[in-house]
Amino acid sequence: MSKYENGELVQNIEGGREINGFGGVILGVDGGATSTVCVCLPLFSDPASLPDPLPVLGRAVAGCSNHNSVGEAAARDTLEQVIDEALTKAGSTRDAVRAVCLAVSGVNHPKDQERVLTWIRKMFTGHVKMHVYNDAVAALASGTMGKLHGCVLISGTGSISYGFTQDGQEARAGGGGPVLGDWGSGYGIAAQALTAVLRAQDGRGPKTMLTDSILRALGLSSSDELIGWTYADPAWARIAALVPVVVSCAEAGDETANKILMEAVEELAVCVKTVVRRLHLCGEDRTSPFPVVLVGGVLEANNKWDIAKEIINRIRREYPGAYPIRPKVEPAIGAALLAWYLLAREPLEGNGCTRWQISSQESTV
Amino acid sequence: MSKYENGELVQNIEGGREINGFGGVILGVDGGATSTVCVCLPLFSDPASLPDPLPVLGRAVAGCSNHNSVGEAAARDTLEQVIDEALTKAGSTRDAVRAVCLAVSGVNHPKDQERVLTWIRKMFTGHVKMHVYNDAVAALASGTMGKLHGCVLISGTGSISYGFTQDGQEARAGGGGPVLGDWGSGYGIAAQALTAVLRAQDGRGPKTMLTDSILRALGLSSSDELIGWTYADPAWARIAALVPVVVSCAEAGDETANKILMEAVEELAVCVKTVVRRLHLCGEDRTSPFPVVLVGGVLEANNKWDIAKEIINRIRREYPGAYPIRPKVEPAIGAALLAWYLLAREPLEGNGCTRWQISSQESTV
Repeated sequence: MSKYENGELVQNIEGGREINGFGGVILGVDGGATSTVCVCLPLFSDPASLPDPLPVLGRAVAGCSNHNSVGEAAARDTLEQVIDEALTKAGSTRDAVRAVCLAVSGVNHPKDQERVLTWIRKMFTGHVKMHVYNDAVAALASGTMGKLHGCVLISGTGSISYGFTQDGQEARAGGGGPVLGDWGSGYGIAAQALTAVLRAQDGRGPKTMLTDSILRALGLSSSDELIGWTYADPAWARIAALVPVVVSCAEAGDETANKILMEAVEELAVCVKTVVRRLHLCGEDRTSPFPVVLVGGVLEANNKWDIAKEIINRIRREYPGAYPIRPKVEPAIGAALLAWYLLAREPLEGNGCTRWQISSQESTV
Repeated sequence: MSKYENGELVQNIEGGREINGFGGVILGVDGGATSTVCVCLPLFSDPASLPDPLPVLGRAVAGCSNHNSVGEAAARDTLEQVIDEALTKAGSTRDAVRAVCLAVSGVNHPKDQERVLTWIRKMFTGHVKMHVYNDAVAALASGTMGKLHGCVLISGTGSISYGFTQDGQEARAGGGGPVLGDWGSGYGIAAQALTAVLRAQDGRGPKTMLTDSILRALGLSSSDELIGWTYADPAWARIAALVPVVVSCAEAGDETANKILMEAVEELAVCVKTVVRRLHLCGEDRTSPFPVVLVGGVLEANNKWDIAKEIINRIRREYPGAYPIRPKVEPAIGAALLAWYLLAREPLEGNGCTRWQISSQESTV
């Protein structure tokens, strides 16, 4: 049994093998465009009352595991490494794992899912329940504490909107990455800002505050150096890191920067509205409440120019039932809770999990 | 002396070392986004009357030499290899070279120019006149037969507009590559088409003929596979190769494809008009004639949907003196003619070229 003092976990007993009277641990992996996080949680007994704070037995961080970005071998190695490290930190082993949910960016097709499943099957025995999703699903679950319902909007380096209905239908919009029109993403915003600097320099576009601000941020002496800087390193996150500069310029009244952010708002709102429309998340009368989980650096509300607020306003004009959720836990925990949630819903089978039975009643968001 | 029979070069004597009574050869290199071409020409005596056809002593082709795309080492090796191969084919040697013009994509800044110059200086003695430009300059010279005047518009895998005045001022617009808003390029057109397929699939955009046409062209069975296909290989030219599919769909009346092409026309016309305005190529009354050299697969006039014609129409609405030139020689020959042209304009110096003197009078286009 884990022991808490003043709400803090002070002791794990046997790495999750005897927590809350249930054996084993669950793993959640969030593989984003820049890093991969794995958390190891104990199995919980009661779906309606999760401990607060959640007892994270182990947590590990590694590099990017998007196979589109780093290649298959590197992605597989990163996933294996981060899982083993989280288990070690939890004082646990692969044998103790009951369920794992990998939510990895770059998983866009059943073939991608199957590929990641193949990698992970080699790590665990057949008794482990394995789920592979796009990383957007972990983000949604981090807002709904494991339940797949509603819509998530992510805008970090990349952007995507993903939604699920109570009865398991799903839909996504966006998430095509830099080549395929991800204009509301951090990458998209920053690339448009860099383009605006180039256009201002060569005379195609108006002068903009972005020029001085971006050159200063990058330590460059002239716009001529921008093309060289851009292609010197193809990492998407390096471009996306310029978003705060764009927001600052917009807050200072720069028209070009404002226009770029407004276009990003429009793109992202369209992504969410498309998912809502396709899944009828708003109900027949278009006013039913549904959560919109907001995740990613672009949607953080620490700026005067609040991109997330503008997006929600646009969505609510069409679907007034949309209510924003800013997750209190990280996406990797969302993935772990989802793994647990899916395990808890399963009918009791002779699948090695016979020691425990959890109600399939759904937890409320 | 070269010998011609029925207009065909049948014999070079001593690899250019004794042609038209002048010693040595000139090299022109066109380093585009997909391949690098080097040609070796003899020195010509009379700037006003170039032989027709031009006596190409040697020609070699190699891969991409854009350091932004393939890295510095590979770019340098490619340039060295293609130059030596052209000289060998011409039966000539590095010692016979009097001038070389390298026009290479990715040269966007004096630093880029200096880097390429450093590579090439190691190949030749100090007597060789060396010039490094963006590859757009070779394209311009291929339309003007070596003279730097007017404007060139290139749209192949990438796009750029470049212009020169008679007195040596220059300006460029566009040419930022895929990340920096090169929307009129083959890459830009194709990336927007792929994006349109994704938007049609996830419900953000209208259905389009592009979906079936692109999936068929790529041998994919569903739009779900597009993201994986896109990032499986980062080569820009692979994306750009889809332009003919977009043109076919536009010709068949697809609105989305038509819109993409019209936006490309607008982007490219703006590039040219910006250069014309900055250099006052149109004269005081905005009606002076100036050439617009059109180069690249996107601007080829073999389609019903004639992108180049639409662009020229837009330019002429503002600058009626703009007249299109479709080069009769390839850009590498343009680069060689430019090397020759710059050499011919030089005042006679004690620079090892004392055997010959060419009038600095400019040739007419």
